[in-house]
Amino acid sequence: MTLLYDRIADQLASAITHGALRPGDRMPSVRGLATQRKVSVATVLQAYVRLEDDGLIEVRPRSGHFVRHRALVPSLAEPRLPRKNLAPARVSVTPGVRALMESMRDPSVVPLGAAQVSPALLPIRQLNRRLAAIAREVQDAGGGYGDVAGLPTLRRQLARRSVDMGLSLHESEIVVTVGAMEGLHLALRATAAPGGAVAVEVPTYFGVLQAIEQLGLKAVEVPAHPRTGMDLDCLEQVLAQRAVKAIVAAPNVSNPLGSIMPDEAKERMVRLSAKYDVPIIEDDVYGELAFDGRPRPALAWDREGRVLLIGSVSKTLAPGYRIGWIIPGRYQEHIERLKYSLTVSTPPLLQMAVAEFLSSGGYDRHLRRLRGQLKAQVERTRDAVCALFPPGTRVTSPSGGFVVWVELPAGVDAFTVQSLALAEGISIAPGPIFSARDRFSNHIRLSCGFPWSARTEHAIETVAGIVGRLAGPNRKTG
Amino acid sequence: MTLLYDRIADQLASAITHGALRPGDRMPSVRGLATQRKVSVATVLQAYVRLEDDGLIEVRPRSGHFVRHRALVPSLAEPRLPRKNLAPARVSVTPGVRALMESMRDPSVVPLGAAQVSPALLPIRQLNRRLAAIAREVQDAGGGYGDVAGLPTLRRQLARRSVDMGLSLHESEIVVTVGAMEGLHLALRATAAPGGAVAVEVPTYFGVLQAIEQLGLKAVEVPAHPRTGMDLDCLEQVLAQRAVKAIVAAPNVSNPLGSIMPDEAKERMVRLSAKYDVPIIEDDVYGELAFDGRPRPALAWDREGRVLLIGSVSKTLAPGYRIGWIIPGRYQEHIERLKYSLTVSTPPLLQMAVAEFLSSGGYDRHLRRLRGQLKAQVERTRDAVCALFPPGTRVTSPSGGFVVWVELPAGVDAFTVQSLALAEGISIAPGPIFSARDRFSNHIRLSCGFPWSARTEHAIETVAGIVGRLAGPNRKTG
Repeated sequence: MTLLYDRIADQLASAITHGALRPGDRMPSVRGLATQRKVSVATVLQAYVRLEDDGLIEVRPRSGHFVRHRALVPSLAEPRLPRKNLAPARVSVTPGVRALMESMRDPSVVPLGAAQVSPALLPIRQLNRRLAAIAREVQDAGGGYGDVAGLPTLRRQLARRSVDMGLSLHESEIVVTVGAMEGLHLALRATAAPGGAVAVEVPTYFGVLQAIEQLGLKAVEVPAHPRTGMDLDCLEQVLAQRAVKAIVAAPNVSNPLGSIMPDEAKERMVRLSAKYDVPIIEDDVYGELAFDGRPRPALAWDREGRVLLIGSVSKTLAPGYRIGWIIPGRYQEHIERLKYSLTVSTPPLLQMAVAEFLSSGGYDRHLRRLRGQLKAQVERTRDAVCALFPPGTRVTSPSGGFVVWVELPAGVDAFTVQSLALAEGISIAPGPIFSARDRFSNHIRLSCGFPWSARTEHAIETVAGIVGRLAGPNRKTG
Repeated sequence: MTLLYDRIADQLASAITHGALRPGDRMPSVRGLATQRKVSVATVLQAYVRLEDDGLIEVRPRSGHFVRHRALVPSLAEPRLPRKNLAPARVSVTPGVRALMESMRDPSVVPLGAAQVSPALLPIRQLNRRLAAIAREVQDAGGGYGDVAGLPTLRRQLARRSVDMGLSLHESEIVVTVGAMEGLHLALRATAAPGGAVAVEVPTYFGVLQAIEQLGLKAVEVPAHPRTGMDLDCLEQVLAQRAVKAIVAAPNVSNPLGSIMPDEAKERMVRLSAKYDVPIIEDDVYGELAFDGRPRPALAWDREGRVLLIGSVSKTLAPGYRIGWIIPGRYQEHIERLKYSLTVSTPPLLQMAVAEFLSSGGYDRHLRRLRGQLKAQVERTRDAVCALFPPGTRVTSPSGGFVVWVELPAGVDAFTVQSLALAEGISIAPGPIFSARDRFSNHIRLSCGFPWSARTEHAIETVAGIVGRLAGPNRKTG
């Protein structure tokens, strides 16, 4: 159920996003709007508080509400493409990831490290209420293992939603997994044997590299452009050399770049996959969080079951429900066997709750609002980086998701930044864990999953100060 | 909360199990017992109905209630030990397991195939009520991933329960997993690299063999005795040859044998593990279902963190909650890293519900009753096999759990029995999937997890008929 003030806030947010209200514009007066909408002044005020929280408007004392001015700072250049090196590499990102994991355990740390959405932005209460009702009503639920491929009701909802992605899947083509990570492991195991290599975009999510490391695979790193993703000429070169067993890519909102591959590029990637008979493992975990709405996945161009799409509700609904899925194409039977052995099934009660939530219509409303909130948070973080970091810094302009990727001035060591920041109670993700090679020693990833606050602003200022000191005195001004 | 009639039934069941009341004895009169206990006649009758359901007593028309006579049929000999062949073998049990999985999907099939406890015997409603209360009250639960090693409250309960197993674990030594199968995969990956070999007892649970197959490992099969488990002389020979990276064993109630390793043997196994520096992966999933109460696991003798114990609530509480755990000893850090990559965490809400249930005290009462019920069901199944199967059949006398392992007359093909039985609407597990080699072609496993009924009896009769026909005419009488 959407609350009245939320509906008003959504409409105003949309007006801001679409440019009907522009930065610096005065917002409608509270009283005027209350009269026009036939609601109370308190309701409008609540809507304005939410828009303020979302970073869309600001209060100027004794003047009223205004659309936030974003162009206060000159925008920095985007990070450069990583150098090409297409030889397969052993992966060893675990030590760096461990430090990150540990920093995430402490709730007092400002969480700029983990790619997690604040629970405050997720409809977790509504979902838990549904779970409570199901656990009360379906008294014997959980008494059996349930179907290895997942609950028919959830698979039906996912199939229904696939239409909005430009697909028309049948529920039988979907296998529910324990989060996206189980799906990724299953996909890698179904397509590549230990010792083999897989192509990844670089920088790439360290979880992909960890899975590759743990399965005894190697990584071939294909440079990725900060706005358009994987370089397909390089990819073709790798495929022509018969060097890899699979391609792992996140065409829709990569992590850490926030890039979206243009549709023509997706189509070309799928054509290459068919030409060289190499499957694509499509990480679509952030696909729903593209700021301009849901783009089509590469799977939409696949006619031969060679794309294995992986999704989850961990970034949009409830990470702790551990509900993900894989659309395994021609690998379905193999994937189901691997899944049966690995976890037997995904907890049925949690599947039921998510299925009910997806069927309610509230999910799409929530997604629209979440995209707006995350976009605002990403922009604020980006603005702060542009304003506060020393010259020579570069930063991405993400098309979705909730992380920004920052190239620091040459010579600034990301691990040093990480430990100095942690000493100040701030976690960040160091660049080197996003590659299997010695790359990104002067890059960091900042997460923007938590609502902007004075604490966030102060944390970014602190990190900027650390980077400034490390960049040396001659770089401090500029 | 235990009901009054349940308490009375438990006391009488204990009197029967311990021999105070013996087969053929008349039970106390309903009225007399009601007067003595100061309860209603209806309460005593309810207790007797439960004892009847549990297979412990029977009603003789116009005579009253009697302790069931079990020695109606001569007991068959126990299955012979498998022949020794200690060379490492590639594993390929998947096709046979697939047929079994498929037969389990059809609810109209009599389920003698899967090792699953009937939901009717599990306190799933009480557990779901707790989950409902938690989902209502802890409104933001599930909004974060939760700790990779599991929820502190659940780990605390498991640590508390470890005292009853002769251990004294600290909660920090326990890692919660998505069922025992995730734990097994993690343990195998932490101890053995692809291409390496692990020692297993044979016959062994096909899930262990599937995991070995999927991880690219090999199996060295150590013969297991139907009552005392793994042959330790053979194991020592394997260890002395430096042939394996780990030992997988179920000292407390193996599957399919239902054996329990004597304490001295457990101690010796742990000594061997230390001497040759090879870890033991201890499958303790059935440990709570030993008919005479919880035996100590091999872990109790381990001083050096070389035993990785794996447990779950899937056989005792709720398979669909997918809550298991591993006590990884010296491999803890590695196991946590592997777990983080594979599934990130185990769903916190389900952990909370299980933790609450374990803390309530109802779990131990439930376990006592469940053991009695399963023992009665196993004995009935065993009796039926002894009475109905053709001469030359051999059958185990399990010390716990809920499966019996049947050696059929030589030449009877288990896969043929499986398909003929399935054509009659009955699933059984064929012997060859319990080994990596061509063993057990004339063995089957029968599950007794569902309450005995005319349908079960008829199904076993049907399987006996099939086996009788396959055994040939000269064997039909005996």
